[in-house]
Amino acid sequence: MDDLSHMRAALALARRGLGAVWPNPAVGCVIVRDGRVVGRALTAPGGRPHAEPQALAMAGEAARGATAYVTLEPCCHHGRTPPCTDALIAAGIARVVIAARDCDPRVDGGGIARLRAAGIVVEEGLLAAEAEEINAGFFSRLRLGRPLVTLKLASTLDGRIATRTGESRWITGEPARRLVHGLRGRHDAVMVGVGTVLADDPDLTCRLPGYRPGNPVRVVADTHLRTRLTSRLVATAAHAPTWLLCCAGADSARRVALEEAGAAVLSVPAGSPGIDLAAGLRMLAGRGLTRVLVEGGAKLAAALLRADLVDRIVWFHAPAVMGGDGWPAAAAFGAGRLAEMPRFVRTSVTPVGEDMLTELKRAA
Amino acid sequence: MDDLSHMRAALALARRGLGAVWPNPAVGCVIVRDGRVVGRALTAPGGRPHAEPQALAMAGEAARGATAYVTLEPCCHHGRTPPCTDALIAAGIARVVIAARDCDPRVDGGGIARLRAAGIVVEEGLLAAEAEEINAGFFSRLRLGRPLVTLKLASTLDGRIATRTGESRWITGEPARRLVHGLRGRHDAVMVGVGTVLADDPDLTCRLPGYRPGNPVRVVADTHLRTRLTSRLVATAAHAPTWLLCCAGADSARRVALEEAGAAVLSVPAGSPGIDLAAGLRMLAGRGLTRVLVEGGAKLAAALLRADLVDRIVWFHAPAVMGGDGWPAAAAFGAGRLAEMPRFVRTSVTPVGEDMLTELKRAA
Repeated sequence: MDDLSHMRAALALARRGLGAVWPNPAVGCVIVRDGRVVGRALTAPGGRPHAEPQALAMAGEAARGATAYVTLEPCCHHGRTPPCTDALIAAGIARVVIAARDCDPRVDGGGIARLRAAGIVVEEGLLAAEAEEINAGFFSRLRLGRPLVTLKLASTLDGRIATRTGESRWITGEPARRLVHGLRGRHDAVMVGVGTVLADDPDLTCRLPGYRPGNPVRVVADTHLRTRLTSRLVATAAHAPTWLLCCAGADSARRVALEEAGAAVLSVPAGSPGIDLAAGLRMLAGRGLTRVLVEGGAKLAAALLRADLVDRIVWFHAPAVMGGDGWPAAAAFGAGRLAEMPRFVRTSVTPVGEDMLTELKRAA
Repeated sequence: MDDLSHMRAALALARRGLGAVWPNPAVGCVIVRDGRVVGRALTAPGGRPHAEPQALAMAGEAARGATAYVTLEPCCHHGRTPPCTDALIAAGIARVVIAARDCDPRVDGGGIARLRAAGIVVEEGLLAAEAEEINAGFFSRLRLGRPLVTLKLASTLDGRIATRTGESRWITGEPARRLVHGLRGRHDAVMVGVGTVLADDPDLTCRLPGYRPGNPVRVVADTHLRTRLTSRLVATAAHAPTWLLCCAGADSARRVALEEAGAAVLSVPAGSPGIDLAAGLRMLAGRGLTRVLVEGGAKLAAALLRADLVDRIVWFHAPAVMGGDGWPAAAAFGAGRLAEMPRFVRTSVTPVGEDMLTELKRAA
């Protein structure tokens, strides 16, 4: 077992925390003494405790003289928990291998400096790209003040998400739909436009038993608070967090009723049309969200694309053609010339049952 | 080298004939004596001579006692060439391995019977599925009286083939466009709707130097003969075959002018809308076409899908989103319910440069 293998194990641990640790980063830690793994942990649900003190606790006395593999630079500031650097030093760790630096201004190299000052050998940058991808949401919140936005769409080959009569269940097959539940589980929140709520009455829960504690926050872009009090979202709002983003002018009686049902109603500046999505996303980041999965509909997708707020795309194509009267995956957003059209970079293509999954990211 | 390897070699030879041998099937033949390949050939351009006599001529005396691997059952009828069965018998071939049976009623097991009657050992069915795929067009013409129809589309992820202003060059990248030229080369004809001719003025030639002798037939579904006399298609009609399918009522002066420019004008019964495509395809088969590549536009694609005339789909998706005001890949064709929507079976997914190629076939 070499450094690379141990860091891969730490990254795999870190990934398991995605969706459950916000507003904190998902970190994995593996402690190795004389070639033997003596401690391993990931950031706990809710973001605390961090990975390092848990792994150290597991290692106990074996931590003395050991190497700690950490996917993100250990924190060196007193937050709600004492600094992880101090815990590593106190435990007698001899060497720390770090995948990515933490760009949080309270850390940003400070953790490394503190460890080195204590005589610990520190190496950084091992599998850094993988670690940065895992924490792309955490970094987005720090750097851009908004969560990472992943747009998920499921359409026919010709980009249709429903027939002209609105029938959309199901265009993709069972394996693709199961995969979407896993995707929800790895995100802090799932967001849709109110049109999707009115048309499909989804519950947007993560139905994979045991997959994660609790449901992702359900967010609805709902300028005029048209979400029905009888909708499945509102009916389950007491159990699964439900946040509605509306404009200031939305009906106040309706707001009160929705809040009484357990939903949180957030006033967002007006955009054109609807709410100002950039402001809405900043508000979501302010509440701690780092990773938002947007599941449509066509208007929300178009508005996010127009505002250049889409970081990742996850697109399922079913092996079918619907024709031009089906509902489009993305509404018109004013790309009159090819050069104005948002382009992405494909990161993977995966057959999923009869469907095909393409993952893309923002072009650099 | 075993039977399988030799048949694979024969299939690879056969494939090289696709697009150049219509109305005949694309056949490959490999002759092996004492483990050594002594003859190999494929159906010549234009469909004659067949593969077997060419391979036998190459083998000469070495054919005596040899094994012949043939991708399609040898013909046993006197056409414009003497029967291949007789040539194999006369050459002293001891054993014939056949991939697929020829469903031409003039053959259909008769070739095998004749070889066996002459004392030749015959085995059939080795890699039959591959051989049937190669000759899907030939079989379609025999069984259905129409060519195999492959629909090729190149769109954004959301199924758009041009911006609202009609800009379509280029949505996909250079590697995908180069691949399309190879695809044209493996088809007897390339077909588009007149809207595409008016919008893009394509020449639909196969621009891969040395790839094939001559160009595929260019076919235009052009109900009212709106193809311009100044179009690139008509301007090159003297060199590359150009067939226009129109309704009987089309302007006769225009017809004469188009014919004088070198185009063939074929009258097809009226459909709704436009020409009766099933009748038009039967007419193309009557003229010998076995494999037609349809390259759009949206109306022709929709009409073929509605009429259930699409056998294969080749879809390139560029990593971009255009939005709902872009031109759709397929126009509306009345699939009001999901169950009415034509579904296909994915046969492959291939990254092509930045784009993604999905190949599908008619669901069984």
